[in-house]
Amino acid sequence: METERLLSNIRIVLVETTHPGNIGAAARAMKNMGLSQLCLVNPRDSFADKPPDKAIWRAASAEDVVNNAMVVSSVDEAIGDCQLVIGTSARDRRIPWPLLDPVECAEKVWVESVAGRDVAILFGRESRGLKNDELHKCHYHVNIPTSESYSSLNLAMAVQIICYELRKASHTVVEPVATEDRWDMAYASASELEHLFEHLERTLVQLEFHDPDNPRQLMTRLRRLFNRVRLDQMEINILRGLLTAINQKLPDADLSSRGEKSGH
Amino acid sequence: METERLLSNIRIVLVETTHPGNIGAAARAMKNMGLSQLCLVNPRDSFADKPPDKAIWRAASAEDVVNNAMVVSSVDEAIGDCQLVIGTSARDRRIPWPLLDPVECAEKVWVESVAGRDVAILFGRESRGLKNDELHKCHYHVNIPTSESYSSLNLAMAVQIICYELRKASHTVVEPVATEDRWDMAYASASELEHLFEHLERTLVQLEFHDPDNPRQLMTRLRRLFNRVRLDQMEINILRGLLTAINQKLPDADLSSRGEKSGH
Repeated sequence: METERLLSNIRIVLVETTHPGNIGAAARAMKNMGLSQLCLVNPRDSFADKPPDKAIWRAASAEDVVNNAMVVSSVDEAIGDCQLVIGTSARDRRIPWPLLDPVECAEKVWVESVAGRDVAILFGRESRGLKNDELHKCHYHVNIPTSESYSSLNLAMAVQIICYELRKASHTVVEPVATEDRWDMAYASASELEHLFEHLERTLVQLEFHDPDNPRQLMTRLRRLFNRVRLDQMEINILRGLLTAINQKLPDADLSSRGEKSGH
Repeated sequence: METERLLSNIRIVLVETTHPGNIGAAARAMKNMGLSQLCLVNPRDSFADKPPDKAIWRAASAEDVVNNAMVVSSVDEAIGDCQLVIGTSARDRRIPWPLLDPVECAEKVWVESVAGRDVAILFGRESRGLKNDELHKCHYHVNIPTSESYSSLNLAMAVQIICYELRKASHTVVEPVATEDRWDMAYASASELEHLFEHLERTLVQLEFHDPDNPRQLMTRLRRLFNRVRLDQMEINILRGLLTAINQKLPDADLSSRGEKSGH
């Protein structure tokens, strides 16, 4: 069935999950809604030989989703090939990120999936969610509405709500709706963006515009900017070329500081 | 907060739950979305002295919802005072009932709650859901969309989705939308309806229109009819009066059958 094939392109990424039972429950929640692609970043209990019993038990008839889970050691590995990355976030952030509710998230993800792109949705630790540096790798954040008096959702419940909205979107949204769904170039993948940010930061240091020991949110704000604008691959190439041109014009930052050289 | 006060009027009824962990997880799911009124019909593990440890543990910070749960021995007790009763149902029924999706269910329940009415939403057993006679006590059934290849949702996950939609409805739906939300009479409660159905069945037997040993879905179809039309209290009184009039005109069914008397 076409719907299930497209839903299976959507990657659910669980980051540093503590309880294997939650992994099993999340797998069941996914399969109930037609999703199947699970990726685990550093789960506490090893999956090296086989998945923990508790994960299998809670998965019930979604054992296959647990057994087929991709287990990796970093978020970058989990999302590297994805062209849209969304992170679940409970808290208001100091630097606000483009924010979706679960319905908007599902519509956006579904349209991407129909357009053949790879999408990842990140879920953080039971205790503290996603870290800031993980959230800053995302194009969007998604927030599930909760009661103010008790807002801490169980991890698998959050997966259930997001996957439920994805299934609903798959029933209703059929046509690409926004400009970005009909773009002429492929969008940059998460790993291409990560290389751009590394190159950018290196160049800003070389320019003495950026002090990594006193970062003052500079890279966070630049990450937000370039994630928000959603770079395509041509644009990434242009920016990388521009940075390389800067690198070549500048004296080698390792030899001397700009201040010492300015007298020459 | 007004929203939370109204959400707390909505009763979540879990019927003959096997696993206390599911009760705890359902309580947490409720509280996360601002609901608090939990009713348990014959849970397998006794709540007589205190709730089972596993229920408390899975509830996390929703321990109060578990501790305050009303524990009863029948569905009738759980819903008796409610004017709207909705049952969760996974399967297609032989006799189809008015069916809502979770969004429609939430909008309807929220509007009732704003109108000050008592509402119950029933969730069945982990193994087999609600029984037919329980489903026939409901005005509506609600069905959560799932994958065809694996449709069996965990109980607490189903509670989570329904409560999540209720919270969403509480954010968006503010005005009564349908005629029935501006009705001049109070709607009949579930126990008033139950008494009507008992009276009706008794009378149909007396009329020899209905054979309880060969029921042929008659009462199911009449239940569906009178649940669908949503009787108000005046209408219940009229129908009960009509049934009483029939009872009084008929010879005592215990003494002789109508056929034997027709010769007089």
